Amino acid sequence: MKIIIKNGMVISMDCKKDMYTYDDVVIEDDKIIYVGNNYNEYCDKVIDAKGKIVMPGLINCHTHLGMSIFRASNDNYTLDKWLNEYIWPIEDNMTDDDMYYTTLLSIVEMIKTGTTCFNDMYFNWKGSFKAFDKIGIRGVYGRCLIGNGNEWDNKVNDFNNLYNCNKNNLIKLSIAPHSLYTVDSDGLIESELLASKYKLPIHIHLSEDMDEVNTIKNKYNMLPVNVLDKYKLLNHKLIIAHGTYISEGEIELLRDKDVSICTNPISNLNLGCGIADINMYKNNGINICLGTDGVGSGNNMNMFYHMSMLDNLQKGKYKDSTVMSSYDVLKIATINGAHALGMDREIGSIEVGKKADIIIVDINDIEMCPCVNPIVQIVHNGWYNSVDTTIVNGNILMDNKKLNVDINIDELSKKINNIRERLMR
Amino acid sequence: MKIIIKNGMVISMDCKKDMYTYDDVVIEDDKIIYVGNNYNEYCDKVIDAKGKIVMPGLINCHTHLGMSIFRASNDNYTLDKWLNEYIWPIEDNMTDDDMYYTTLLSIVEMIKTGTTCFNDMYFNWKGSFKAFDKIGIRGVYGRCLIGNGNEWDNKVNDFNNLYNCNKNNLIKLSIAPHSLYTVDSDGLIESELLASKYKLPIHIHLSEDMDEVNTIKNKYNMLPVNVLDKYKLLNHKLIIAHGTYISEGEIELLRDKDVSICTNPISNLNLGCGIADINMYKNNGINICLGTDGVGSGNNMNMFYHMSMLDNLQKGKYKDSTVMSSYDVLKIATINGAHALGMDREIGSIEVGKKADIIIVDINDIEMCPCVNPIVQIVHNGWYNSVDTTIVNGNILMDNKKLNVDINIDELSKKINNIRERLMR
Repeated sequence: MKIIIKNGMVISMDCKKDMYTYDDVVIEDDKIIYVGNNYNEYCDKVIDAKGKIVMPGLINCHTHLGMSIFRASNDNYTLDKWLNEYIWPIEDNMTDDDMYYTTLLSIVEMIKTGTTCFNDMYFNWKGSFKAFDKIGIRGVYGRCLIGNGNEWDNKVNDFNNLYNCNKNNLIKLSIAPHSLYTVDSDGLIESELLASKYKLPIHIHLSEDMDEVNTIKNKYNMLPVNVLDKYKLLNHKLIIAHGTYISEGEIELLRDKDVSICTNPISNLNLGCGIADINMYKNNGINICLGTDGVGSGNNMNMFYHMSMLDNLQKGKYKDSTVMSSYDVLKIATINGAHALGMDREIGSIEVGKKADIIIVDINDIEMCPCVNPIVQIVHNGWYNSVDTTIVNGNILMDNKKLNVDINIDELSKKINNIRERLMR
Repeated sequence: MKIIIKNGMVISMDCKKDMYTYDDVVIEDDKIIYVGNNYNEYCDKVIDAKGKIVMPGLINCHTHLGMSIFRASNDNYTLDKWLNEYIWPIEDNMTDDDMYYTTLLSIVEMIKTGTTCFNDMYFNWKGSFKAFDKIGIRGVYGRCLIGNGNEWDNKVNDFNNLYNCNKNNLIKLSIAPHSLYTVDSDGLIESELLASKYKLPIHIHLSEDMDEVNTIKNKYNMLPVNVLDKYKLLNHKLIIAHGTYISEGEIELLRDKDVSICTNPISNLNLGCGIADINMYKNNGINICLGTDGVGSGNNMNMFYHMSMLDNLQKGKYKDSTVMSSYDVLKIATINGAHALGMDREIGSIEVGKKADIIIVDINDIEMCPCVNPIVQIVHNGWYNSVDTTIVNGNILMDNKKLNVDINIDELSKKINNIRERLMR
């Protein structure tokens, strides 16, 4: 199957190219095989992207897909209270089947808003994997680990076997110890052993708010990143989710080990955690990527909304509108995400040889008019109906704003509402 | 003409009622005549709002409608540089005709996103008034005044005559001295005289960033609000746009005079002005309302996006998720706005006797699913396609997501792009 995308403005995120070009993009099966002018060979499908933007799919580097059931549920909860009194008791009652549907809902949302790859950490992997297989979306999944490491190898092994069955071959795995306040030192040792044994990256929540930082300081008599270092977690491919409060000293350690920080600006505001000093991290050479977090605290999975906020917040925090640009933010949401996941040779930009994870954004709609600066425009004004086409691994999952997946949306919506009603009882 | 809205969840913002009720809402001509159960009389039109939210239209208390031409144009500009080097030179070349089309575009955006009343301050009123008349939207308009007051009476008088011709009778006027840094003391004296003479409210930019506050302190040897007080501007119905940096001492003065502060959180971040201490203002009894500012710095006129940000930002600024709730934010964007404009007896809530400015929000779409808490949901997840119906003064301007106005959107879009190309040259 050969697809050509013609006449679009290509924002390739390829650092060897201009910020935008007017190129044809040709896909053969799962790969990009040509980016340039006037491709003349036969293609099975022609997509006319005139007046539209062609760009790499967005990469959501920290989320909990199964949490769609908690959308916008938090009003006036602190992080601690929200988790302990609201989220965790309900999560305990979620079945495999619940998780299948809630994950499916998140995937639909991602496709509609141009996210082609996720980094998920959650509890019930069986339901989620069924949803991944059903749709064929790309992602990394870590079975969320809590406690002292007991039985974890069995869990991860189970999981590893399941992974080997994932029929689209689009899901990779991670080791996902939940956090330093829910995993003890034995659990950290076990996490490191499992990451070594299965050669997997590590995904952990860290320094989400100051209470957490103080708890860890009191427990270990050192800062959170030093704890990660002590237990050798920095020696692996590591993504830190949140990192709202990381000091300059800790940042140096992270940079030397090429650790990525995935910021979740909306969730951090919503739960009263604060505003991370992303500009300082960036200036110190840290690879920054972006996450929505679960929609309970992140409100939605529309990465454009989260991009807009990341950019605005850093400008506001520094009282300086020059500390970040929309292009910086696009990098954070694409190629930096790919780097964080160890997949920058495969995804994150439109380049020959990479996987065909591509979105087309419609800037013709009246709400995008006029388009003075396309890069600023898409970072700040990407709505639910702005994404026109979403392609993952060469498969067109949304075509001209029409979902191209085997799901009945009305039925899914009913299912979700039924699950919500049952769980909230 | 009698319209009944049935089966909806009504968030009336009527402080005498519950947060939401399941009532019928009946409109006769321009007014709400019934809110309650089981209305049995004949109506000319029945709107079925089953599974949808019925609420008062949103009130955007600070904007520059003609600025739609500058949408998302600011990336890395400081406020001062952006105004002096970019915006003002282009504005000088805008014709009446340009202003007609750019205002029309903003009105379309307001209708699509559920704003039924605006507070505009801008330069070329003739074009804008033609657009207001064309559509029939509600608003307050102030001819932006800069300088020493010379010739202002003629300008305002002209304007006053024009106002008396506005055929829908939906537009009220204000006196709009631009700011303390662009209007001198004679201009302030003249502003006060004109507000007295024509019995109009005053709308002024104030304390948008710290540079401005310092400039005014150096010039007058007093704080900005004290300058307003000295020149008697506080003795009139006054809306302060921005007020990003107002001290507790100044706040007391404002409260005693029932001055409203219109916060523009996105614009303030974008231009590096900072985050206003809205929670402190609110706790000190100030009436807070919400504005998008012009789309050059505010990105868009979708008040839902700006509401989401206001709520998130205060929670993040205070590192406390309990300082603001979604319901507080809804008040700010409806009834508080009405109060700020001196129109709280007419608009801002769904109550018998008030003008029929009503919107219906669709929470059935998959991106709103599940709707755990409708109030949190609409504050944080209102997108361009979330508003189903927009009614201004009893006229249905958008019906079931279809614009019901005499505009060809494709032609408007072309016009705007032509104007942009000509002006940017």
